[in-house]
Amino acid sequence: MSSSNRGMKENQGSVGLVQRKILAFAAPPDEMVLESGARLGPVTLAYETCGCLDSQRKNAILILHALSGDAHVAGYHTPDDPKPGWWDWMVGPGRPFDTDRYFIICSNVIGGCQGSTGPRSINPATGKPYNLDFPVVTIGDMVEAQRHLIDALGIDRLLCVTGGSMGGMQALEWAIRYPSRVASAIPIATSCSLSAQGIAFNEVGRRAITADSRWQGGNYGPNPYEIPAAGLAVARMLAHITYLSEQAMQAKFGRRLRAKDRYGYDFSIDFEVESYLHHQGESFVRRFDANSYLYISKAMDYFDLYRQYGSLEQAFAAVQARFLLLSFTSDWLFPTPCSNEIAQALLTKEKEVTLREISLPYGHDSFLIENDEMKHIVSAFLARIYAAL
Amino acid sequence: MSSSNRGMKENQGSVGLVQRKILAFAAPPDEMVLESGARLGPVTLAYETCGCLDSQRKNAILILHALSGDAHVAGYHTPDDPKPGWWDWMVGPGRPFDTDRYFIICSNVIGGCQGSTGPRSINPATGKPYNLDFPVVTIGDMVEAQRHLIDALGIDRLLCVTGGSMGGMQALEWAIRYPSRVASAIPIATSCSLSAQGIAFNEVGRRAITADSRWQGGNYGPNPYEIPAAGLAVARMLAHITYLSEQAMQAKFGRRLRAKDRYGYDFSIDFEVESYLHHQGESFVRRFDANSYLYISKAMDYFDLYRQYGSLEQAFAAVQARFLLLSFTSDWLFPTPCSNEIAQALLTKEKEVTLREISLPYGHDSFLIENDEMKHIVSAFLARIYAAL
Repeated sequence: MSSSNRGMKENQGSVGLVQRKILAFAAPPDEMVLESGARLGPVTLAYETCGCLDSQRKNAILILHALSGDAHVAGYHTPDDPKPGWWDWMVGPGRPFDTDRYFIICSNVIGGCQGSTGPRSINPATGKPYNLDFPVVTIGDMVEAQRHLIDALGIDRLLCVTGGSMGGMQALEWAIRYPSRVASAIPIATSCSLSAQGIAFNEVGRRAITADSRWQGGNYGPNPYEIPAAGLAVARMLAHITYLSEQAMQAKFGRRLRAKDRYGYDFSIDFEVESYLHHQGESFVRRFDANSYLYISKAMDYFDLYRQYGSLEQAFAAVQARFLLLSFTSDWLFPTPCSNEIAQALLTKEKEVTLREISLPYGHDSFLIENDEMKHIVSAFLARIYAAL
Repeated sequence: MSSSNRGMKENQGSVGLVQRKILAFAAPPDEMVLESGARLGPVTLAYETCGCLDSQRKNAILILHALSGDAHVAGYHTPDDPKPGWWDWMVGPGRPFDTDRYFIICSNVIGGCQGSTGPRSINPATGKPYNLDFPVVTIGDMVEAQRHLIDALGIDRLLCVTGGSMGGMQALEWAIRYPSRVASAIPIATSCSLSAQGIAFNEVGRRAITADSRWQGGNYGPNPYEIPAAGLAVARMLAHITYLSEQAMQAKFGRRLRAKDRYGYDFSIDFEVESYLHHQGESFVRRFDANSYLYISKAMDYFDLYRQYGSLEQAFAAVQARFLLLSFTSDWLFPTPCSNEIAQALLTKEKEVTLREISLPYGHDSFLIENDEMKHIVSAFLARIYAAL
């Protein structure tokens, strides 16, 4: 089958066609009040849904994406769409997030660049993009915006909140901030606070962007030749290394040369792994905004349940959600001890929690790569939660 | 004692004052022929020595530095010099590289920017800096240049060659290339070939430099405001993260804020770890050249004893050196399996080899941080080699 036909048609179990939707709220004078104290409004939030909300509105699952993700979690935007949403193998009829049974919502984040209000949105006060006048947002602010969405959908209580990496941070924040509205949570490959090393990698990425002379203090123009593409590509290349394991890179690329059988003895690309990283960088700048990268990475840096609640135990004291925590053996950015720490605090507060470390070699990105173990664990957990309602 | 007095005077066991020396060789028509086939000459090589060469010229130890190092291994350049050489605690009277007993040579590398011929040297063909016309050099080429130095010093056989990281690669290359001239080798925290992840980090660093608009294809001017400082700083910040362990960063900085007690909610520095990295980047651009960074990191990428000799066993078939391999538990850039692989090949070829993994939390940089275990192991190994002469 030619690649142009590799669209939705052959996908049994796919949710099929989906559409991006937009919720608008917080119009002045009712702006959101952010954790920083700044006010933001009006706000739009992009989201997608699949499956049907049941008459009691009890089967809703909120999926939250990682740093560079978007609301397009599953299915296709057009019949010829070559690629489904980012977690398509997890979401659909008969899949773990079973759209025959559950109503799936995937929400984007404020500060982003995928349909929600962010630094490149028009500042109503000036008629120009906010750029660096956009207020710094936190994971808590992202969740607060999503709460508007869940209210608007008429859902009192979510069956589950889930997400990997930054999505996992949002899932934790949801369970803590709205204890009575979250029946279960599946935070994946995440942490209750970013490590010093994690902050360091984020700061180098931000520095690569702001060092690009086209960045212009954030006030770059809208055209492709005006954006700080080189700096953003460097940030993405770096981040991408941290999403993979050394082992996975060695297995996938090793020291294989790219289209040559001897070294070039120059600074063109010698190795496959270099070519792969450049491709990652180049494709990222076509779909992601540099200022958004600054804001969203900063939100991750700021996430710290210790600082916010005094201790992890206090953070989790009131949660009602049952927890399934997933981590991966080869994830060195959010290694299993990060999940262990969360599990320990939940246990201390006598909450229900299961921690599963899945043995996969793909590093932090393991949660994005189809695997049976994760499918089985999530299916079984959700079925139990749903049956216990 | 005030910091201005913290110079050489209080240092018992210091080698005292040392001077940088320069060897010139390979004047046309006798240029060096590099592994690429390119010719390079004239060549200068910076080095420092301490201790005395004995009458039989049998007590010479060659120390080789890492990517950003230089020939200034120990002692002070002036009486008021606030800082000694980079391995001062290892080199001096009564220290492991005991200058009462051994003659210590530390050699810089070609391609560098610390007194040896490199991309910012004047190209005799044009009267201008080579910049990107400088030929790509390999670890083997660096060793070949050092061989000229050892010849010029009248030394037939080195008691030991040693170095960490890229210095360890050179030590391996020395033992293989000149089997009869190397009695022992101490490669530290090194590898027989850089991993895909190592290449990837190097390429992101190079890309950060070449993406800097001041880089100008390598043809930046000599003044501080003309150099690609921002790109080079990003490269250094990134590399620095890989030299430390996550554990060491967490212990040293954790999530401590820098001179504030709440988040700034802006893009100024929030965390100590960010401030530290920025300082590392800024001080690096004052002492290191951006083009040299491209060349030296490329030499590390190209180092591959498998490719060069067909197999590790063939690479080590003829070596006469006795080996002491050192690795560190917390080094994730050149972890112990890299040293294990070398030890295994040496054992297969029935060579004498000791591998010691030292338990230290500082990551790849552990070999640069004073510790008793390393001092004892190296002292004892050298004493045995020296006694067996």
